[in-house]
Amino acid sequence: MKITDKLAQAHSAAKLPKATFSFEFFVPKTPQGVQNLYDRMDRMYELNPIFVDITWNAGGRLSSLTNEMVYTAQSILGLETCMHLTCTNMPVALIDEALDRAYKSGCQNILALRGDPPLDGSESTGDFKYAKDLITYIRKKYGDHFDIGVAAYPEGHPEETSGDRILEYLKEKCDAGANFIVTQMFYDVDNFIDWCSKIRKIGIDIPIVPGIMPISTYASLIRRAKWSEIKIPQHFLDALDPIKDDDYMVRQKGTELVAEMCEKLIQSGYVNHLHFYTMNLERATVMILEKLNLVEIVRESQVVTEAMPWRKSLHPERSKESIRPIFWQNRKYSYIMRTSAWDEFPNGRWGDARSPAFGDIDLCASELLRQSPKKALDLWGTPSTLKALEDLLVSYLEGGLTSLPWSDGPIGEETGVLIEDLVSINRKGFLTTNSQCAVNAAKSTDKLFGWGPKNGYVYQKQYLEFLCPKSLVDKLLKALDLFNSSDSEGNTHVITYYIVDKSGTLWTNTKEGDINAVTWGVFPCEEILQPTIVERTSFLAWKDEIFTLISEWATIYHRLMAKPSDGDSDQKQDQNQNQDDIENAYNFFNQLGDELVLCNLVNNNFTASNDVLFSLLNNLET
Amino acid sequence: MKITDKLAQAHSAAKLPKATFSFEFFVPKTPQGVQNLYDRMDRMYELNPIFVDITWNAGGRLSSLTNEMVYTAQSILGLETCMHLTCTNMPVALIDEALDRAYKSGCQNILALRGDPPLDGSESTGDFKYAKDLITYIRKKYGDHFDIGVAAYPEGHPEETSGDRILEYLKEKCDAGANFIVTQMFYDVDNFIDWCSKIRKIGIDIPIVPGIMPISTYASLIRRAKWSEIKIPQHFLDALDPIKDDDYMVRQKGTELVAEMCEKLIQSGYVNHLHFYTMNLERATVMILEKLNLVEIVRESQVVTEAMPWRKSLHPERSKESIRPIFWQNRKYSYIMRTSAWDEFPNGRWGDARSPAFGDIDLCASELLRQSPKKALDLWGTPSTLKALEDLLVSYLEGGLTSLPWSDGPIGEETGVLIEDLVSINRKGFLTTNSQCAVNAAKSTDKLFGWGPKNGYVYQKQYLEFLCPKSLVDKLLKALDLFNSSDSEGNTHVITYYIVDKSGTLWTNTKEGDINAVTWGVFPCEEILQPTIVERTSFLAWKDEIFTLISEWATIYHRLMAKPSDGDSDQKQDQNQNQDDIENAYNFFNQLGDELVLCNLVNNNFTASNDVLFSLLNNLET
Repeated sequence: MKITDKLAQAHSAAKLPKATFSFEFFVPKTPQGVQNLYDRMDRMYELNPIFVDITWNAGGRLSSLTNEMVYTAQSILGLETCMHLTCTNMPVALIDEALDRAYKSGCQNILALRGDPPLDGSESTGDFKYAKDLITYIRKKYGDHFDIGVAAYPEGHPEETSGDRILEYLKEKCDAGANFIVTQMFYDVDNFIDWCSKIRKIGIDIPIVPGIMPISTYASLIRRAKWSEIKIPQHFLDALDPIKDDDYMVRQKGTELVAEMCEKLIQSGYVNHLHFYTMNLERATVMILEKLNLVEIVRESQVVTEAMPWRKSLHPERSKESIRPIFWQNRKYSYIMRTSAWDEFPNGRWGDARSPAFGDIDLCASELLRQSPKKALDLWGTPSTLKALEDLLVSYLEGGLTSLPWSDGPIGEETGVLIEDLVSINRKGFLTTNSQCAVNAAKSTDKLFGWGPKNGYVYQKQYLEFLCPKSLVDKLLKALDLFNSSDSEGNTHVITYYIVDKSGTLWTNTKEGDINAVTWGVFPCEEILQPTIVERTSFLAWKDEIFTLISEWATIYHRLMAKPSDGDSDQKQDQNQNQDDIENAYNFFNQLGDELVLCNLVNNNFTASNDVLFSLLNNLET
Repeated sequence: MKITDKLAQAHSAAKLPKATFSFEFFVPKTPQGVQNLYDRMDRMYELNPIFVDITWNAGGRLSSLTNEMVYTAQSILGLETCMHLTCTNMPVALIDEALDRAYKSGCQNILALRGDPPLDGSESTGDFKYAKDLITYIRKKYGDHFDIGVAAYPEGHPEETSGDRILEYLKEKCDAGANFIVTQMFYDVDNFIDWCSKIRKIGIDIPIVPGIMPISTYASLIRRAKWSEIKIPQHFLDALDPIKDDDYMVRQKGTELVAEMCEKLIQSGYVNHLHFYTMNLERATVMILEKLNLVEIVRESQVVTEAMPWRKSLHPERSKESIRPIFWQNRKYSYIMRTSAWDEFPNGRWGDARSPAFGDIDLCASELLRQSPKKALDLWGTPSTLKALEDLLVSYLEGGLTSLPWSDGPIGEETGVLIEDLVSINRKGFLTTNSQCAVNAAKSTDKLFGWGPKNGYVYQKQYLEFLCPKSLVDKLLKALDLFNSSDSEGNTHVITYYIVDKSGTLWTNTKEGDINAVTWGVFPCEEILQPTIVERTSFLAWKDEIFTLISEWATIYHRLMAKPSDGDSDQKQDQNQNQDDIENAYNFFNQLGDELVLCNLVNNNFTASNDVLFSLLNNLET
């Protein structure tokens, strides 16, 4: 969606926000850095920014990475995204490619920039000299598809001293078809307000988005101001200079100063939106938002905007997607990637999607291998027995671990209510990979389970998914069948199950084509929504993914099995011990896949207690 | 579905039925007779017959009526239908037309008959001489699309005395491609069993369906036996002769005798299905089924087979239809007719059906005019004030009336729980046309509200639809808006409404495109089903229908406004009085449409009591 439309929408709501805001991120240099930034962006989604910016990096791998990050933000993280695009050294073919990829990612916002001139002082080799040429080109090629933003310099441009000429250039860019203005960082509010009144006078009437740079340290403040040739107001310096060596104090005081400045901006009437240069950091920006009381307001309306129990993709092709299998609940990257080639996404009924063909498993498994083996070792150690693996899972459940190969992030708040029971079955050898508890008519505004519009009711069938030794299958089947038949009226005990081994041998009491809605909601004046389901084809695709992840896990240890290195003998002995552990872990994971089955159980009686499924497993002799 | 497939399915179920059964109906001579028969067939659906037969009437209007009845039975009444088709005097063009219409109705069963020779002794002018020629033709033209049944004569054929020749003819028909045999009526079980063993010996292995003729009166028994040249066993005559003048006793004893005969048939092992020649009557057949304990068995499994809260059409194009607007709840004929041209029927989500275009309103309104004005007068009298109309509606609610222009049949059992409240709001001037009560998680096997597979839960939002004077709209809107805003948290009071006048002026608190699921169900290992909805476009189509019905109601009185006839003066005075009443009723209904609005209210809080909506209306000052 276009930024100007989102702004218009947000500021025409019944309950007007004081101000909305957005975040700018730059492209990190390493894959691990990218992964960390994704995690950060994922958390910052909760703050409900109107959009995020991804900066442009001309040339080669890094510009491709800008496009990749735009896709991830828009499609997977569900963040409305604005892509920077610069002219410097960019031949039209590269511009075309970047725009095409942005278009295909569902991105509808471009910040068109001239870009800094080449560092070596040479002329740019790009086909466009000025941002206005780029704007004209984008408009010609894509019509109104993109909202186009332009940069502005309230305190002048290092290369141009005449204030009038600068305004003239800005007017030219706007006349070429820009939709909004993002300004360079500044701290001089009075000058900014003055500048706003000037540009309004020369007929520029598009939204002005001020760029806000939080203050992290005194040194960085001074450095950036110097580099950008902007003025730091005297009262900033007066307040910060005495504490300049205390980073903590600087940040506290800086937050106050910047928040104060933002209040003034909002009160000026020229501004209803703040754009934060986050420098890929979270805390400094959040502190300012908190100071401005913008975070609390967002959280209040949060429940209303969360349309589904899972994060909606903003990719236009997925705009009507309303159902997903529960299996990828904790692996949204993988789910989006493996379904990215679908022509249509299930809306209303999974059954309408016909037979879902899940994409290449490598796309998702590679995620595990992308991170450094060293980090995996730090996170997960070297378990080499089922017992040790149990310990790891229990540690994850209890919050001691922030991820597992099959869970992108830490345990969800919602899972909290089941933790004791989950720990207990893990201790019995049922290595849980996913779960949800039964919910019978919770309000849609419920803090833990609510989603969708207010005045609705939401429901869940209890779901348990786990790996367990093949040797337990017979006992498990017996217990399940006994349970399902134990009530002579057959009225309540309906557990459906899928049990499958690595090769695909399947035990189930469901029929081919059965689709089980396990999360649904009833809302005023709406059709019934059923955002998560359990279904055979998807489960088999998920089974492949889980077993691939186990084998990738082994691969990580294999990569760590280095040749013995030189060094003093103590160190060497330590290393040998480590190497033994790693080798043991490798051997364990290398054969683990063949020894386990993946099971899922649904208690279709969503009115029953969660104890039902847990006691069944707890009572099994293992 | 094919009869042989249905039989195979029914007799391979987990709980084997003793026997299944079917009913044969003939085409009545008058439109009123047809309407009455539809009502009867509609009731007899509840007995769960495997199929019904509609006899053929060669030539003109009556054969067209056979096709129409086949369509109605299959598509509207949801009865699997077998169409008789005869050769006598039927040129191939007429055969083609009949088969084409049967095909398009979704009928998959034809009973191919030679038919009786022309009554005047002339040769048949048809293109096919024998049933086997017709069978060959159908097979050639339609491949395996139709199951083809053939007639058989266990006691010989009036035109053929040689038993061997008769068997030979039957074998030829079977070899030509018949799938099942329906026999002529008979009462001699021993002869039948003997005959069965003979036809099995000559290699006929398709199902044998015995034709059973209930005994209504002694005279009809004798007459039919004579006409068909079949034997009445001595013990039948011995039992019936002494009571032959007492129709009641004959029917009782006859039921016993025929039931006894059916038991023997079933025990013989040749038969697991009974085909009843109902003569378009209900009672005699039902008495035999009850005697055989076949009705009770059916009722037990009923709940399981009722897949939806409304009767499913058996038209193949509608096979996936799973959602209907609630408005036509009591006018299923009209709904099927007005949607018969749709390419696709909503499955899972109404929204997927895009904008529904409802067919010509004349199709449905004509129903009212098809019945004789005299009958309408008998049923509904001559109300000429709102108060008198109220009385009529109250009488309908209390069971004193079996239909209304907008309700095909008597008040449903389900509505029963609301009757007192409905009567009370009718007395306030809210003339109810449709309603359903709130249901919060009733079991799917619930006798009153249950539908769908067992171990499920079903839900309803309360729905009220009524006509009321335009002058009440302001008050009603005020009360609704007050109600919706009365809870400061806005958590429970969510009534959505549509109020519309004849010309289409609409008051609503819904948005364009809103679709409100008002009946839904949750079942083990299934997607959520939502079989009825409330939605704007459909409601406007329904509004047109309701207002057309009111104007047709006026037309009925107009037709009854005869010129004064001759006769004695007393009679004349009576007639004049009647004529005045009729004229008053005409004037009343003629202007009524302009004075009323049609309203519907949904209480989206399905967990609330039904009192909520009723008190709102009861508390309105009218």
